Amino acid sequence: MDKLELVKRNTEEILTEKALEDLLKKKKEISAYLGIATTGPFHMGYFVPLGKMLDFDSAGIKNIILIANIHAALDDLKCSWDELDKRAEYYKKCIELGLPWNRKPKFVTGSDFQLKKEYIFDALKLSTLSTVKRATRAASEVTRMQNPKVSELIYPVFQALDEEYLKADIQLGGTDQRHILAYAREYLPKVGYKSRVEIMTPLITSLKGAGTKMSASIPGSSIKIYESEDSVKKKINDAYCPIGEIKSNPVIQLYQHLIFPIRKKIKIERPKKFGGDVSIKDIDEFKKLYSAKKLHPLDVKNKLSKELITIFSKARNYFDKNKDLLKSLGKDFQ
Amino acid sequence: MDKLELVKRNTEEILTEKALEDLLKKKKEISAYLGIATTGPFHMGYFVPLGKMLDFDSAGIKNIILIANIHAALDDLKCSWDELDKRAEYYKKCIELGLPWNRKPKFVTGSDFQLKKEYIFDALKLSTLSTVKRATRAASEVTRMQNPKVSELIYPVFQALDEEYLKADIQLGGTDQRHILAYAREYLPKVGYKSRVEIMTPLITSLKGAGTKMSASIPGSSIKIYESEDSVKKKINDAYCPIGEIKSNPVIQLYQHLIFPIRKKIKIERPKKFGGDVSIKDIDEFKKLYSAKKLHPLDVKNKLSKELITIFSKARNYFDKNKDLLKSLGKDFQ
Repeated sequence: MDKLELVKRNTEEILTEKALEDLLKKKKEISAYLGIATTGPFHMGYFVPLGKMLDFDSAGIKNIILIANIHAALDDLKCSWDELDKRAEYYKKCIELGLPWNRKPKFVTGSDFQLKKEYIFDALKLSTLSTVKRATRAASEVTRMQNPKVSELIYPVFQALDEEYLKADIQLGGTDQRHILAYAREYLPKVGYKSRVEIMTPLITSLKGAGTKMSASIPGSSIKIYESEDSVKKKINDAYCPIGEIKSNPVIQLYQHLIFPIRKKIKIERPKKFGGDVSIKDIDEFKKLYSAKKLHPLDVKNKLSKELITIFSKARNYFDKNKDLLKSLGKDFQ
Repeated sequence: MDKLELVKRNTEEILTEKALEDLLKKKKEISAYLGIATTGPFHMGYFVPLGKMLDFDSAGIKNIILIANIHAALDDLKCSWDELDKRAEYYKKCIELGLPWNRKPKFVTGSDFQLKKEYIFDALKLSTLSTVKRATRAASEVTRMQNPKVSELIYPVFQALDEEYLKADIQLGGTDQRHILAYAREYLPKVGYKSRVEIMTPLITSLKGAGTKMSASIPGSSIKIYESEDSVKKKINDAYCPIGEIKSNPVIQLYQHLIFPIRKKIKIERPKKFGGDVSIKDIDEFKKLYSAKKLHPLDVKNKLSKELITIFSKARNYFDKNKDLLKSLGKDFQ
C-alpha cells in the first residue's frame, strides 16, 4: 500500500485530500496530532483514531498525542480543575499501554503550554476574530452545549491554536470534530499561521447497537481497556452483531479500526464441523466473508474477545497494580 | 462632609450601600479601582469617574487606575493588538496630567498581569461557570456587541477578576457598567474570591444635547483634554445649555463632576450690569441659582472654558511637546 493510501484508509473525510497529497509530496518529516480530552473513563471508542495513528506510524508520520486536560475542563467541567494532573496521568498510561506502539507517540499535556503568555495572547487575538455564532457552531458537536458556557466558545479557539503550538502538519479527529476542524482551517491564517490538513475517522457504533455512538457516558456502550477478562468476554458476547450485516456493526468496526491495523492478518479458529479455522488477510476479505454469512457472529466475537484481552493486557496489568489511581479518580473509572 | 457622604456624592448607584458602609467602618486602608479601556481618544467623559476619585482621595481611599488595554482589544479590537503599549502610555499621560491629583493614583496596565498564568487559570475557571447568555448580558452595554465576538464574553470575566488581582475593595464605573459590575459581584465568589463594592457614576450628556452620552465616537460630543484653547472655548460656547435647565445639561454636569470636586468653591465673573461677580460655595447652590435663572448660560460657559483650559493646561503642554505620540496613534487622536 502506498503512503497516501495508508494515510487515507479507514478515514471518513479529509480537509482537503489535495492538501494531504501536497503535504506528503513536499514534506519529509510530517507530524500529526490527536487531541484526547480527559473527559471521563478511557474506553474503546478512542481506538478508532488511535488505530489510525498506527497507520500514520507505518507511513513514517510522527504521532503527537495531546492530553487535553484543559479542554476537558472547558467542556462544561467534564474534568474538574483540581484533577487536571491526575486525569492526564491516567490518560497517558491508558494510551501508552493500550496499543502496541511501534514508535511511541510524543505526549504533550494541555496544561503544560495552554496557560503560557504567548499562547494566551494568540488565543485572545483569535477570540476577537471569532464571532460567538461561529464559535458556537464550531464547538457544537464536541462540547456539552447544554446551556453553553463561555469556556465552550474558548474551546475551539484553543484547539485551532494547538495545531500551531504542537507544530503539527495534520490534525486527526473523529467526524464529530468536523466543525471545529473546519474552524481551525479557516481561522488560523487570520492570526498568521498556516492551515493544517484535517483528517477525520468515523465514529464507532455503541456495543448496544445502531443509533448511538460508543461513549463513556452511555453505560454498556463500550469497554474500558482495563476491564476484567470476564467483563470483556461478556460485553463482546452481548454486543450488537447481526448475522451478515456490516453497517453499524460495532464488532466489525473494531476489527476494521483496531484489530486489523495491529494484526495485519488474522486467523479465526472454529471447530471443524463449523468450517474449521479460517485465515483472513485483510478487512476487505473479512467483510466479504461476513456479508456472505460465511463467518458466524459467535466465532467473530470469540476471536475479538481474545484479541482485546491480549491487546489490553499491559494496561489491565498496570491498573491491577495501581488501583489507587483509579480509585482516586472516582467510581466511573473503576 | 463625613466620609460616607463624600464617597456617595455624585454617584448614581452603589452595590450595595450596606456593603459600602460596612467597608468604611471595618477597614482602614481601603482601595478603589477604575478601569479605563484604551478604546479611543481620551476625552472629558472620563472626568466623571475620575472626578469621583478626587473625592475618594479626600476620603482617604487609595485610588488604582487600570489602563485596560487588553480590554480595549477584546472589545471588538477598539485597540489593535499592536498598539497596546502605545495606547497605554497615552492614557496614562492623559490621566496623570489631566487632573490635579493630590495623591497620585497607582497605575496598573492590563497587559502587565492579565496574561499571567495564575490570572488566566482563574479566567478559564470563571469561564466554565459563566453561561454565554449571562456573559452576553454582562458585556452588553460596555462592549460593541455588533455581531458579538468570543472576546466580548471574555471581557466581563476578566473585569471581574481584576477586582481580585488589583486587590481593590471597590470598583468604580459608569452606570453603563451596571451589568458587568453586578456580574462581578455574583461570580467572583464562585471562584473563591470576595465580592467587592460597586460604585457607579452617571453618564455625562453629549455637548450637543440630550439623548446621547458624551463619547469619543460621537464627533463634537466631547473635548479631548489637549485640544487648543480656542477649540475648548468654541465647543463650550456651542454646547447645549438651555437657560434654567439642569437636567441633561452637559455644562452643569461638568461643574458638578469636574469643576466643583477640584475647586471646592468658585467665583463667576460678570460685568456689573449683569449682576457682578458671584461666589458659589457648592454645586447645590450653583444648581439653585441656575434653575432660578440667576446665572446666565453665557457666563457659566465662559467660566467653564477658563477652568477647563486651566485644568487641562498640563496635558495640553505635554502633548504640544510630544506631537509624535499623538501622530503615531492616528488621526482620531490629533
